[in-house]
Amino acid sequence: MCFQAVICVLWTACVCQTAGNQHDPNIIIMLMDDMGWGDLGIFGEPSKETPSLDLMAAQGMMFPNFYAANPLCSPSYTPQEIVGGISQDEILLPELLKKRDYVSKIVGKWHLGHRTQYLPLKRGFDEWFGAPNCHFGPYNDSLRPNIPVYNNSEMKGRYYEEFEINVKTGESNITQIYLEEGLDFISRQATAQRPFFLYWAPDATHAPVYASKHFLGKSQRGRYGDAVMELDYSIGQILERLVSLGIHNNTFVFFTSDNGAAVMSGPRQSGSNGPFLCGKETTFEGGMREPAIAWWPGRIPAGTVSHQLGSVMDLFSTSLSVAGVLPPDDRVIDGLDLSPVLFNNSLLDRPIFYYRGNQMMAVRIGQYKAHYWTWSNSWEEFNKGINFCPGQEVPGVTTHTQEEHTMLPLLFHLGRDPGERFPISVLSEEYEEFVRRANAVVKKHQERLIPGEPQLNMCDAAVMNWSPAGCERLGKCLKAPESKPWKCDWPH
Amino acid sequence: MCFQAVICVLWTACVCQTAGNQHDPNIIIMLMDDMGWGDLGIFGEPSKETPSLDLMAAQGMMFPNFYAANPLCSPSYTPQEIVGGISQDEILLPELLKKRDYVSKIVGKWHLGHRTQYLPLKRGFDEWFGAPNCHFGPYNDSLRPNIPVYNNSEMKGRYYEEFEINVKTGESNITQIYLEEGLDFISRQATAQRPFFLYWAPDATHAPVYASKHFLGKSQRGRYGDAVMELDYSIGQILERLVSLGIHNNTFVFFTSDNGAAVMSGPRQSGSNGPFLCGKETTFEGGMREPAIAWWPGRIPAGTVSHQLGSVMDLFSTSLSVAGVLPPDDRVIDGLDLSPVLFNNSLLDRPIFYYRGNQMMAVRIGQYKAHYWTWSNSWEEFNKGINFCPGQEVPGVTTHTQEEHTMLPLLFHLGRDPGERFPISVLSEEYEEFVRRANAVVKKHQERLIPGEPQLNMCDAAVMNWSPAGCERLGKCLKAPESKPWKCDWPH
Repeated sequence: MCFQAVICVLWTACVCQTAGNQHDPNIIIMLMDDMGWGDLGIFGEPSKETPSLDLMAAQGMMFPNFYAANPLCSPSYTPQEIVGGISQDEILLPELLKKRDYVSKIVGKWHLGHRTQYLPLKRGFDEWFGAPNCHFGPYNDSLRPNIPVYNNSEMKGRYYEEFEINVKTGESNITQIYLEEGLDFISRQATAQRPFFLYWAPDATHAPVYASKHFLGKSQRGRYGDAVMELDYSIGQILERLVSLGIHNNTFVFFTSDNGAAVMSGPRQSGSNGPFLCGKETTFEGGMREPAIAWWPGRIPAGTVSHQLGSVMDLFSTSLSVAGVLPPDDRVIDGLDLSPVLFNNSLLDRPIFYYRGNQMMAVRIGQYKAHYWTWSNSWEEFNKGINFCPGQEVPGVTTHTQEEHTMLPLLFHLGRDPGERFPISVLSEEYEEFVRRANAVVKKHQERLIPGEPQLNMCDAAVMNWSPAGCERLGKCLKAPESKPWKCDWPH
Repeated sequence: MCFQAVICVLWTACVCQTAGNQHDPNIIIMLMDDMGWGDLGIFGEPSKETPSLDLMAAQGMMFPNFYAANPLCSPSYTPQEIVGGISQDEILLPELLKKRDYVSKIVGKWHLGHRTQYLPLKRGFDEWFGAPNCHFGPYNDSLRPNIPVYNNSEMKGRYYEEFEINVKTGESNITQIYLEEGLDFISRQATAQRPFFLYWAPDATHAPVYASKHFLGKSQRGRYGDAVMELDYSIGQILERLVSLGIHNNTFVFFTSDNGAAVMSGPRQSGSNGPFLCGKETTFEGGMREPAIAWWPGRIPAGTVSHQLGSVMDLFSTSLSVAGVLPPDDRVIDGLDLSPVLFNNSLLDRPIFYYRGNQMMAVRIGQYKAHYWTWSNSWEEFNKGINFCPGQEVPGVTTHTQEEHTMLPLLFHLGRDPGERFPISVLSEEYEEFVRRANAVVKKHQERLIPGEPQLNMCDAAVMNWSPAGCERLGKCLKAPESKPWKCDWPH
């Protein structure tokens, strides 16, 4: 068996120091914004511009069947006028990790409520450098303020103001700032020998995409690719820092993205969903299947691929398991603990549900996916030129009205047909057998489901980021308009 | 620079013997049938079922921008009733390699004329095991004979008869036979210390796809994936044999495919073109961009990616260069010698022309591709359910009439938009600048082009494989109908 040679990675020559006292393992979750499944070299992007992520996969475990919980960055896309945020009833990962003395930091985008009571330091994080929303804008601070960037609980400036993004050239050094914030945090905790949780959520690949000077114009893929190259470089720097600090054997790192590539933004501002159908905002594979890589040298076997159906929701349960913390027992937890997958290459049988808003649109069980509802976007939006599936059209599947198929779900085999192009005949045995199974799984799911209290129904221009904490010190407070709440409208 | 660790491959422990006298390097060209760019794990297939090819790429050089010369397996698809074959004026690679005493073998599909005077042993090959066409069929040997399988210049049987393919189950051991033929040839030449050229062209991934019992049902992708897994296994065996014979450091191996995946054949009988548009028979990227890997341990740097625009035509010039044979000087050679790319990672500036029949449809220069003509297939075929672009539709691009754009070519940037979904505005500076350049390149090309003499114009049922050489010995001669030549019809 000569050709099936072992690929080894020369770690030993690199490790500059090894950890003295092994404490509870560190946890790093890297969540990209609107990056698609097909954006990484190792996932098939033809330009092959992600050497660090490709190497991360070669040293870790790759998940080609990993899903976002929703085809949008927040469970609902939350503009500044949102009054609410994540419910106080939810228990967040950094809160639980406190039980074992973890220090937690979020770098980058929060997006679970921008008003004071919802911000990260109120929800278990010890540190934050970043913003409560994407870098939407620029705004003129009159009808709508620019999004503030916080250092911990006080704003340090605003996007497009103190934190420049040149929309015309695409230049911004914000990813470099987020990288430095991450590296600094890691080094400080390593020195203090405290276990840490770093949630690293840069947003350079969300339109309007940006990259710093050194990366601008470097990609074969244009500006979007420049942003990917800078993120790839940054991830390489973070992993390299773990190695140089000698804590790589005690750090669980997971890389993924928040939803599929925003293909409606066109070729200069969006990424690739590889062979998959449609993109962000839809429940086709392009909307929810994500690139995903787990890395933990010495614990997770190098160069492996797991076909486990995974979900970002699993990162909660898995991180708790890694840290040796029990999940809350007063509620049902939707995520799975992936430890058996990561450490023993097991496969856990579980369905994936595809939701759009409150509507369960589809379910995946094994290689089969049944669509109970289909919808790309409305004719009204489509006719305005907004296309969630550019260049793709599967008759009866990429529908512009919300089509119900609950009596006869549209069935695809994602192994043979990852692009959801060939519905399986309703007259086949295969159809009958699987749909019976899927219906049973869906029925059980819906019976057990406890609907959450809607948190994002109300909007009000008065709650926008006019005067975030710290604005006085900077002279950056803006006058809020009078409060006039309305019921928010969610077009997607 | 710790994280950017060297990936090394443990060759040394494997090598059982090293070559005594280093003679001229051996050459192996592996050409797959209808395999698509997206069918390999390393090129992004989600099931990741090609460990040998992925390892071959990790040990060699990968080409994400490599093209077939035509979107069909032969320059024109040649059924049995074809009277002609490759012109006697063409000089073939094995003929030239004779100058340096190479022994040449073709295993698998020939497809350059099935009548006696066109067969491989008349054209420089010393050995052949395979067939003069794909395994089309089964036929009943009355209206149309089954395709013969030859051992050298005599038939050994026919597909679906002595060489079984069960169309219902997809079972056939033909790939195993082709593997054994390849391995045996390699071992014999290594023992004799003679330089060899092996052209290994199995056709298991051409519909109706097949795999042997051990591989059937193994793939997540269904039967097509089973065929891919068996080919991947076989390629691993061939490379492993080179290593165990100690001749891997003296053998140039190139893997690619003959055209894009035949997506019109549906999800059970065809592969994947990854993120690209349409498939076989079209001049969109899905029709002509191919997976390609070069391998030569010690000569070609391991784990590299070359963005060279390459063509299967280059394998002629490159193989001659590797063997130290000068190309014929009495004609213009279309292919490039890729040696500087393989050995020094150079990039050679060259256009790629996309032909369909005699029509130049498009040209690629750098990242830009200009379509001078567009056509998927005719309305007549499309309305019969034959779809060369299933699930894909780009208005004005995937046209069902042959649309001329020579005055204003359709322009795409394949880096930003590998799927050819977003034509660049004719009003942009980018358009004007590039199209001027492209027009000049096309003009020069057309001025210098010397049209070949058509070889495939005439058809005749009498010339089909009724009584191939060797049929008497097997009692397999069939009676040919009377000769009634007609002018062939090429619908695509």
